[in-house]
Amino acid sequence: MKQKAVLAFSGGLDTSVVVKYLQEEHNMDVITVTVDVGEGSDQKKIAAKARHLGVLRHYNIDAKKEFVEKFIHPAIKANALYQKKYCLATSLARPLIAQKVLEVAKKEKVSALAHGCTGKGNDQVRFDVTFGSGSNLPIIAPIRDLNLDRATELEFANKHGIPIDSVSKKFSIDQNLWGRAIEGGNLEDPYAEPPDDAFIWVKTKNLPDKPRYMEIEFENGVPVSIDKKTLNPVRLIEYANQVAGANGVGIVDHIEDRVVGIKSREVYETPGAMCIIEAHSDLEKMVHTKHENKFKSIVDQEWAWLAYSGLWQDPLKRDLDKFIDQSQKTVTGIVRLKLYKGGLRVVGRKSKHSLYRHDIATYGKGSAFDQRKATGFVELWGLQTTEANKLADKR
Amino acid sequence: MKQKAVLAFSGGLDTSVVVKYLQEEHNMDVITVTVDVGEGSDQKKIAAKARHLGVLRHYNIDAKKEFVEKFIHPAIKANALYQKKYCLATSLARPLIAQKVLEVAKKEKVSALAHGCTGKGNDQVRFDVTFGSGSNLPIIAPIRDLNLDRATELEFANKHGIPIDSVSKKFSIDQNLWGRAIEGGNLEDPYAEPPDDAFIWVKTKNLPDKPRYMEIEFENGVPVSIDKKTLNPVRLIEYANQVAGANGVGIVDHIEDRVVGIKSREVYETPGAMCIIEAHSDLEKMVHTKHENKFKSIVDQEWAWLAYSGLWQDPLKRDLDKFIDQSQKTVTGIVRLKLYKGGLRVVGRKSKHSLYRHDIATYGKGSAFDQRKATGFVELWGLQTTEANKLADKR
Amino acid sequence: MKQKAVLAFSGGLDTSVVVKYLQEEHNMDVITVTVDVGEGSDQKKIAAKARHLGVLRHYNIDAKKEFVEKFIHPAIKANALYQKKYCLATSLARPLIAQKVLEVAKKEKVSALAHGCTGKGNDQVRFDVTFGSGSNLPIIAPIRDLNLDRATELEFANKHGIPIDSVSKKFSIDQNLWGRAIEGGNLEDPYAEPPDDAFIWVKTKNLPDKPRYMEIEFENGVPVSIDKKTLNPVRLIEYANQVAGANGVGIVDHIEDRVVGIKSREVYETPGAMCIIEAHSDLEKMVHTKHENKFKSIVDQEWAWLAYSGLWQDPLKRDLDKFIDQSQKTVTGIVRLKLYKGGLRVVGRKSKHSLYRHDIATYGKGSAFDQRKATGFVELWGLQTTEANKLADKR
Amino acid sequence: MKQKAVLAFSGGLDTSVVVKYLQEEHNMDVITVTVDVGEGSDQKKIAAKARHLGVLRHYNIDAKKEFVEKFIHPAIKANALYQKKYCLATSLARPLIAQKVLEVAKKEKVSALAHGCTGKGNDQVRFDVTFGSGSNLPIIAPIRDLNLDRATELEFANKHGIPIDSVSKKFSIDQNLWGRAIEGGNLEDPYAEPPDDAFIWVKTKNLPDKPRYMEIEFENGVPVSIDKKTLNPVRLIEYANQVAGANGVGIVDHIEDRVVGIKSREVYETPGAMCIIEAHSDLEKMVHTKHENKFKSIVDQEWAWLAYSGLWQDPLKRDLDKFIDQSQKTVTGIVRLKLYKGGLRVVGRKSKHSLYRHDIATYGKGSAFDQRKATGFVELWGLQTTEANKLADKR
Repeated sequence: MKQKAVLAFSGGLDTSVVVKYLQEEHNMDVITVTVDVGEGSDQKKIAAKARHLGVLRHYNIDAKKEFVEKFIHPAIKANALYQKKYCLATSLARPLIAQKVLEVAKKEKVSALAHGCTGKGNDQVRFDVTFGSGSNLPIIAPIRDLNLDRATELEFANKHGIPIDSVSKKFSIDQNLWGRAIEGGNLEDPYAEPPDDAFIWVKTKNLPDKPRYMEIEFENGVPVSIDKKTLNPVRLIEYANQVAGANGVGIVDHIEDRVVGIKSREVYETPGAMCIIEAHSDLEKMVHTKHENKFKSIVDQEWAWLAYSGLWQDPLKRDLDKFIDQSQKTVTGIVRLKLYKGGLRVVGRKSKHSLYRHDIATYGKGSAFDQRKATGFVELWGLQTTEANKLADKR
Repeated sequence: MKQKAVLAFSGGLDTSVVVKYLQEEHNMDVITVTVDVGEGSDQKKIAAKARHLGVLRHYNIDAKKEFVEKFIHPAIKANALYQKKYCLATSLARPLIAQKVLEVAKKEKVSALAHGCTGKGNDQVRFDVTFGSGSNLPIIAPIRDLNLDRATELEFANKHGIPIDSVSKKFSIDQNLWGRAIEGGNLEDPYAEPPDDAFIWVKTKNLPDKPRYMEIEFENGVPVSIDKKTLNPVRLIEYANQVAGANGVGIVDHIEDRVVGIKSREVYETPGAMCIIEAHSDLEKMVHTKHENKFKSIVDQEWAWLAYSGLWQDPLKRDLDKFIDQSQKTVTGIVRLKLYKGGLRVVGRKSKHSLYRHDIATYGKGSAFDQRKATGFVELWGLQTTEANKLADKR
Repeated sequence: MKQKAVLAFSGGLDTSVVVKYLQEEHNMDVITVTVDVGEGSDQKKIAAKARHLGVLRHYNIDAKKEFVEKFIHPAIKANALYQKKYCLATSLARPLIAQKVLEVAKKEKVSALAHGCTGKGNDQVRFDVTFGSGSNLPIIAPIRDLNLDRATELEFANKHGIPIDSVSKKFSIDQNLWGRAIEGGNLEDPYAEPPDDAFIWVKTKNLPDKPRYMEIEFENGVPVSIDKKTLNPVRLIEYANQVAGANGVGIVDHIEDRVVGIKSREVYETPGAMCIIEAHSDLEKMVHTKHENKFKSIVDQEWAWLAYSGLWQDPLKRDLDKFIDQSQKTVTGIVRLKLYKGGLRVVGRKSKHSLYRHDIATYGKGSAFDQRKATGFVELWGLQTTEANKLADKR
Repeated sequence: MKQKAVLAFSGGLDTSVVVKYLQEEHNMDVITVTVDVGEGSDQKKIAAKARHLGVLRHYNIDAKKEFVEKFIHPAIKANALYQKKYCLATSLARPLIAQKVLEVAKKEKVSALAHGCTGKGNDQVRFDVTFGSGSNLPIIAPIRDLNLDRATELEFANKHGIPIDSVSKKFSIDQNLWGRAIEGGNLEDPYAEPPDDAFIWVKTKNLPDKPRYMEIEFENGVPVSIDKKTLNPVRLIEYANQVAGANGVGIVDHIEDRVVGIKSREVYETPGAMCIIEAHSDLEKMVHTKHENKFKSIVDQEWAWLAYSGLWQDPLKRDLDKFIDQSQKTVTGIVRLKLYKGGLRVVGRKSKHSLYRHDIATYGKGSAFDQRKATGFVELWGLQTTEANKLADKR
């Protein structure tokens, strides 16, 4: 009897090549696993492709709800934007997919785990670390191990009768509920503007002439309704993607530091994420003390770095999550966004936990704040600073 | 002979009240100093008002160039956005104005320094700390010391024949080259959208139908040309304000933590600052190593916090500046922005110091990057993380 | 009927003066509260003194167990050393004492809260913030409000027949289970060595000639036994104080930044704290991943800063505590210390959660670590660094 | 003609094996380079050994002065202690040695660079990154590339007639001016106490019966005299090592996270470093503002991390150095240490830049500090904290 390998399968070029490679070079039976994390490809087509490639068994797992609750919600609470820009759509999905692969591996008693990641990207780290955190099985990663480039893969595909999707010829795409990443083609020139046809979620032409307002309601840091409509977690993000995308909001274009040290130019469509994080971040400033605001931005940066860097399973991430969860107990309220032709701005926010007090802040009559207290405050606030300068002047 | 006080004078309600107060309650001669930091009010009108109030002498000091070179440029290098949003326009101008007041004080041998700040805001801190860092003279701050509110001030003005500007009745405004701050009125309700007439620099209606591209060229972190036009430092920022404002870019609306602990809702117009900092920040990611990118974001946050908090003179700021200046030696290059109806996006960047290498990053043929090296990297990268999880599983 | 005030009462000069002051100047009945936080003064003597001063009622509250479990244990988990040196003994006790005062205030329905802190120290902040976090009652702080110095207080005491403790004439002492702070006298000269008679807990002469080993066992970050003796939380710390003090370990002498901006020279005896934190910190490095080790040191610094700065009640501290508690789940094990004539050193540690693996670390035969993996790791680890230097060389 | 390789040569087992390996397996001529970084081995003996092994040429380079000025002094300014304990002795020497090897490589026009590092340690990173930052030559690292363990090396040595030093059989030692690292043997059991014969610099028995005071004078953060004796930079550190070692001070024992992810138990003798850093760190607290103190501790941690991690050449290190150098302009003064039987304590410090002011800090009569100012300070300091708690109570 042949040995079995389980493979995270997307139906694309890379993972199709891996199926054949495992069958022919390793002489193994292949079990494919496709995890539906939303906004995605046709799951039936993927299953058909897997069968066409002669796999032993194909699993299709709907993990959309789990993806939102266990991965996207923590990211929202952490205002997670790697290097201030990237909402981590792919980064968050990979550990989940890898976990599902592990579950199948245990059930099927396979003797190896496989993925189709290259050695240049971040996904290999996320797969390998998740696999290694939950199992001692060997990991087979043929694209990386054979140092294959795209042209060589296409040749291999031709030779082995692997059908190639003509659509993905121009760009390399990865997408899920939380965002869509576009790579390759002329995007590899960081000075060239991304062409309009790179964008599918975000309209770039013929945008509505009137501003669109969006009200997002948060409970303990998690979005629970938009425009006064309570939506289930998956639907809420789809809705935000649609509304923001239709109003031209959600394109990100930046230079990114990959885990392996490569710099890459990355282009994303993340309309829902952009709105939700902007709103969440604004609400936090209303309900958190200034000490929380200052320190949490350091915690948030570390969280995003860990999640991006394939260290989702590191105990540090669990530590950070506890900090963040506690901080979200007051992050309840409503934020009003204005979307207009690609522009996005918070125009209002309210919360029962608001530390903003009109009676203190107002310059109008009858303020509860006695300004005279400030004299002593300011003097002590600046005591060492002024002292240091006076001392320096004397010398 | 009467004692003399020197007063930072803007010509507005607060400082006009202070002139009279010093004259009548302290029986002092008042010397007023107005510092032109750009985009500003009519300097002649202010001088006339000072004379009308019977000051002993009025100084008008043009400090626009110094403001840009010694305050705005360091802020750009630091990507300075307090609490991720505020470009520090007022915060940066205050220490400069206070320094100029000190210079006049020394020349005029006055016996007191005065300002018209309230006890609720941040400006009192910036004035007091700058004053205290350079002098031992007493500081008179009547608005704060008497705990005056706006209504009481208006009464006092009426009684003493101080002319009141009808324009500033709706909002309280502070503006300079780097931005325009709008406070008061219905903006004190953080859930209410700012009305269109709050905005003067940024168009909110009838925006151009075509995208406007803007190319900003940086040398050592400082913008030196826009749209291939080399402009002097002051003119360059005015130009950026005009172009961005005309395309609807530059409105900021957020909740802010003041030094004294008050939360306030702040609305700003900062079109030029928004474009320049977005571009600068993007360029840094191309030329800095990932270690610089990660740590500099902590340095930048601290810099903005210090400048906001009235600690411009703290030795720590000088330490941070040295870090930042060194880091800017490679921040030379061109960033291309797309502005469209309020939306702002970087669409291209290039630099001779770019650490982006197409031959490494490409998924195409002939890459210089040998993917097989990644296998060892990933295993060691995740070594402790996987180890920690395996250990936990055993228990 | 007279109004009532409740006062945190230590029996020392400051608080005795306050009793009289409240009675005579405010015409109030005074209720005194003394909280026993260990290693402390004679509670009966304090009660007698309160009665002698004519208080309405005196409360003596034994809070030793609560002090250890709710204040000292969190500090141990945070390796709390303010400015790398001070174990926060007094800082931790103040919020607890203030809470107890608040409890009495509610029960007694008083109309004011009082403390005897000066305006120069940190304790005023801890009292005021705790009081303000739990009540709207006015706070009376006569020493501060009248700007009293020690000499003036002594006069006042004489005039009002307040007995003065001759012992505390040389130094000003505050002590509890977690440490003993010594201030005043020639210690105010930061260049002068503290005289031997400043020290009571730590032997400075005739120390034992043989090293003393101490084994501290931790469970989830909390010390549970020493020298294989399981001790209750209070007893354990007393024991550590005795053993370490007898071997000359535990004197701290440093320059400290107070909350109000004053620098002071502080001398402490903290024998138990020094041993326990040294051991705890060492054990963490064995069981935490390197990511936890690096980031937790930042969390720890912030925790100590908050606790020192009188911000014990800030929501940020609760957030940090959650991080820290989660991180302590693996901090279980035994640390062996060697104490000898004032020297302290960890000489051994073990834990079932240890991430140290002899089979990986050994340079001996049969290591589980394949060194060849390191080649790829090192190249990618240094990729951007080497790239940046090569690029710089070309220019 | 044979190709040439240049090898960093210590005369120990590893590098001796590499000489033979390069000669026999690569058929190359070997040029050896030994860099004298102090407290070191017999340079003549090493040269003789090199000749015995048949090298083409041997270089002996005295770099002690450069080591102190360009590596140790920056480390002192950064209070560099990796993971709070390790003074980086070896970490600092490696980039310097590698630079010297590069210089020889250029002069000799070799075709490869070689080192004898294993794949488990940190030194490979420091060599490879320094080599890669300054050259494109291939790097040969046979111990790592062949995954050799110590036993196999000994066999190889026997076979090829390489003389083995009997001394280094028990422990593996690396030492230079700044410290001595001891590895191997029973030290690989982290629970076992290091035996006394591991220590050579630090006396562990028959220590002097009287305390030894040591006065270190700093100028701009650099130690310039000890005990009032001005010493050259190299001699000063030797002197500190001698005095501290003779009084039992300077042993470090901790768990360390290596760059490659391995945890190791490390034992060091660093008597001079321990005294100098303790003194420097104390002096900084006297002359730096509290803002500098808090932020510099983060800068210091990052500096130590970079230097340890083989990223000495990263632009971030140069950025950090600029911060640190600026901060040292006030770090001038004298610190008095007391050393006694292994214990070390600062007992006095003074500086013309001291921000400690007796007239402010004193509790005695006539203080320049008006306590009444503190009332307003404390209220605003705690404003948001108390507000947040009151709000929470209402719900």
